[in-house]
Amino acid sequence: MNEAKDVTEIRDVVIAGSGVAGLSAAVYAARADLEPLVLEGPEPGGQLTLTTDVENFLGFHEGVGGMELIQRGKEQAESFGAEFTHGTIEDATLDGRPFELELANGDVLRTRALIVATGASARWVGAENEDELMGYGLSTCATCDGAFHRGDDVLVIGGGDSAMEEALFLTKFADSVTVVHRRDELRASEVMANRALEHDDVEFQWNTELLEIHGSQETGVTGATLISHPDGLPKKKLDDGEDVERERVDVGGIFYGVGHVPNTDFLEGTPVELADSGHLETLEGMTTETSVAGVFGAGDVMDPDYRQAITSAGTGSMAALDAEEWLEKQVDEGTQELLAEASD
Amino acid sequence: MNEAKDVTEIRDVVIAGSGVAGLSAAVYAARADLEPLVLEGPEPGGQLTLTTDVENFLGFHEGVGGMELIQRGKEQAESFGAEFTHGTIEDATLDGRPFELELANGDVLRTRALIVATGASARWVGAENEDELMGYGLSTCATCDGAFHRGDDVLVIGGGDSAMEEALFLTKFADSVTVVHRRDELRASEVMANRALEHDDVEFQWNTELLEIHGSQETGVTGATLISHPDGLPKKKLDDGEDVERERVDVGGIFYGVGHVPNTDFLEGTPVELADSGHLETLEGMTTETSVAGVFGAGDVMDPDYRQAITSAGTGSMAALDAEEWLEKQVDEGTQELLAEASD
Repeated sequence: MNEAKDVTEIRDVVIAGSGVAGLSAAVYAARADLEPLVLEGPEPGGQLTLTTDVENFLGFHEGVGGMELIQRGKEQAESFGAEFTHGTIEDATLDGRPFELELANGDVLRTRALIVATGASARWVGAENEDELMGYGLSTCATCDGAFHRGDDVLVIGGGDSAMEEALFLTKFADSVTVVHRRDELRASEVMANRALEHDDVEFQWNTELLEIHGSQETGVTGATLISHPDGLPKKKLDDGEDVERERVDVGGIFYGVGHVPNTDFLEGTPVELADSGHLETLEGMTTETSVAGVFGAGDVMDPDYRQAITSAGTGSMAALDAEEWLEKQVDEGTQELLAEASD
Repeated sequence: MNEAKDVTEIRDVVIAGSGVAGLSAAVYAARADLEPLVLEGPEPGGQLTLTTDVENFLGFHEGVGGMELIQRGKEQAESFGAEFTHGTIEDATLDGRPFELELANGDVLRTRALIVATGASARWVGAENEDELMGYGLSTCATCDGAFHRGDDVLVIGGGDSAMEEALFLTKFADSVTVVHRRDELRASEVMANRALEHDDVEFQWNTELLEIHGSQETGVTGATLISHPDGLPKKKLDDGEDVERERVDVGGIFYGVGHVPNTDFLEGTPVELADSGHLETLEGMTTETSVAGVFGAGDVMDPDYRQAITSAGTGSMAALDAEEWLEKQVDEGTQELLAEASD
């Protein structure tokens, strides 16, 4: 026994992430008197905070703002006793008990159960100058930054639901919105694709990719170099030495809508199994359990398919219920061990 | 080809059940322009309508009435074009395409996809006279009928969460509330068990079961005969010929809180796989697919474990997304078949 360690607090449950999944887990865990600690990472509130209008979350028949839903959820979790703190897990030791979590600021947390609800983050496309211009006319969030582009011509990169959402939203502000997609077919859901395709103010540039962004931090984005190939995937064609068509366009803003990567870097090197995509693997069946007993997953970090606010709220509550059951079982087993020792 | 059949309408999606799961499925399916038909069965709105206050559904930080949440969800689904009708499936033919659903009123519906969100219904305990007195002082729903028992002494039968909820709710009206449980330990969650155990107005009668209910439809419930055995499960002891203690008590109301059975009778004899408990079996992994392609399950009918409003809303939206994807695949395959025929 390491006596020194026992003076520091051991939590029952730490919830990593404060998006919809983390909040729903916090509501359930707090209501079960587990006094959860919720770690708010670099994107507090998660992806939903980047959405203006949520109209498919059951119960909000007149729609609800993404930020508003998050704020209401946080209030709800706090009302049951959940504690929130800013912190990002840098390193996790999950092969001993209790688990140890080292935060980016050096603090170490110890906890019996861990709910991973760290979500997913926007992907970048690898265009030249994107590092320099991100936040200076280049954005991954139309909702956040669209209003800075009144009267501009803007590009949206991508062909999925988030690209369509960004494009539609940007029509409110921009003079023209052009979706740049590397294939000749969208992979967005039918409803979103049709909305964008039928919208008068959304143009499409098919089989085209963004090669380079022009501008500076002083001027902001001023233009872009696009490449295209009639068979699609022009960047790959360029890499293969094929001819591609180049075009330089003047634009005042570029928005990335090319998907997300799960935030599981801190789990690499731990016994928690990850899919090739980086998503947290949960066990078979309707459960949030992972390959490590006591570690549970909820929300987009473990769900590459549905990725809805309402499904994340669902898996969040499941993770808290799973954690509660697991903690109770630990207590029971601990009691039995003590009884066994006493009877020796 | 049976030409006669083709004159009747074929739906894309029928959703059986109008509880939280059915409504969330309806919101998603309607928003995807699938024009779902929602069948409201014998308990429209499902179990949530029996709950006064829902305080753990993310986003309702001040709580929301169960009935209110259902009404808001129905309005939301209708706003996207979902159609609602009263109807209970009596017989389902799921081994052909399209599926055929025969309703209790004789109507026949034809649909390409079916979302089963029929939920679960309250279980009865098998006491003498329960058939006669159900609805006359005997109830499965404290929220619905508690207010009729102001000043009464009442019994609550059961030891799980729903029994605790019923008991706590009844303290608002009844003079005394006694929980009758056949074991000496509750199976309720810790938070609910503690709330009931610590409540001054809730008494417990352990190792006891309800044998007979006294009264008539004219007088209502007037009393009950309880049996008990120090080792628990007194009815089983009585059946085994052991001695049990009998007690006659005067009470004005009896509430059953002994769990629920999934509403899957109409699926017996179909190729849809059911668990021994009667629950709909979904395929492995995070999915609502069942053993029959095109049939999806959502909510308590497929979830014997979590059974929360927020998880049902989650699986409801998953079922609609799964159904949408499946229908699109059918269209693609149909197109490919036509192309193959054309090239012959």
